[in-house]
Amino acid sequence: MKARIHVTLKPGVLDPQGKAIQNALGGMGFDGVEEVRQGKYIEVDLTETDKAKAEAAVKTMCEKLLANTVVENYKIELV
Amino acid sequence: MKARIHVTLKPGVLDPQGKAIQNALGGMGFDGVEEVRQGKYIEVDLTETDKAKAEAAVKTMCEKLLANTVVENYKIELV
Repeated sequence: MKARIHVTLKPGVLDPQGKAIQNALGGMGFDGVEEVRQGKYIEVDLTETDKAKAEAAVKTMCEKLLANTVVENYKIELV
Repeated sequence: MKARIHVTLKPGVLDPQGKAIQNALGGMGFDGVEEVRQGKYIEVDLTETDKAKAEAAVKTMCEKLLANTVVENYKIELV
């Protein structure tokens, strides 16, 4: 079973990396870029085949390691 | 119009960051983690309202700045 995890900064949290991309795009002549936010995308392949168990495990991974829940949100998708 | 971009390493390209996560998860007692791959997730807000034009612009952004197409794939979703 594969888990797709998106870790994104919470709204309102400053994103200097996104801002840098936005400035670079502006400098390259791309107009009309209002905002850029950068997050992380993580794919985890699990041997677990039970969806509920896999989801619980991945949730714990996010809480303990993959996301800083003070400033980041995470979203889990199992496929 | 908002573009959601996933930038991932091509299959076969070594992913030391993913490997580090995998090792950390193993050390924390998570068994059954077969592989971890880490990519980037970028959200771009555009003033452009025409879907085809927006897609073309974002494709150029990916080719020129957001992805290193030698070792990375990108996927664009417009919402």
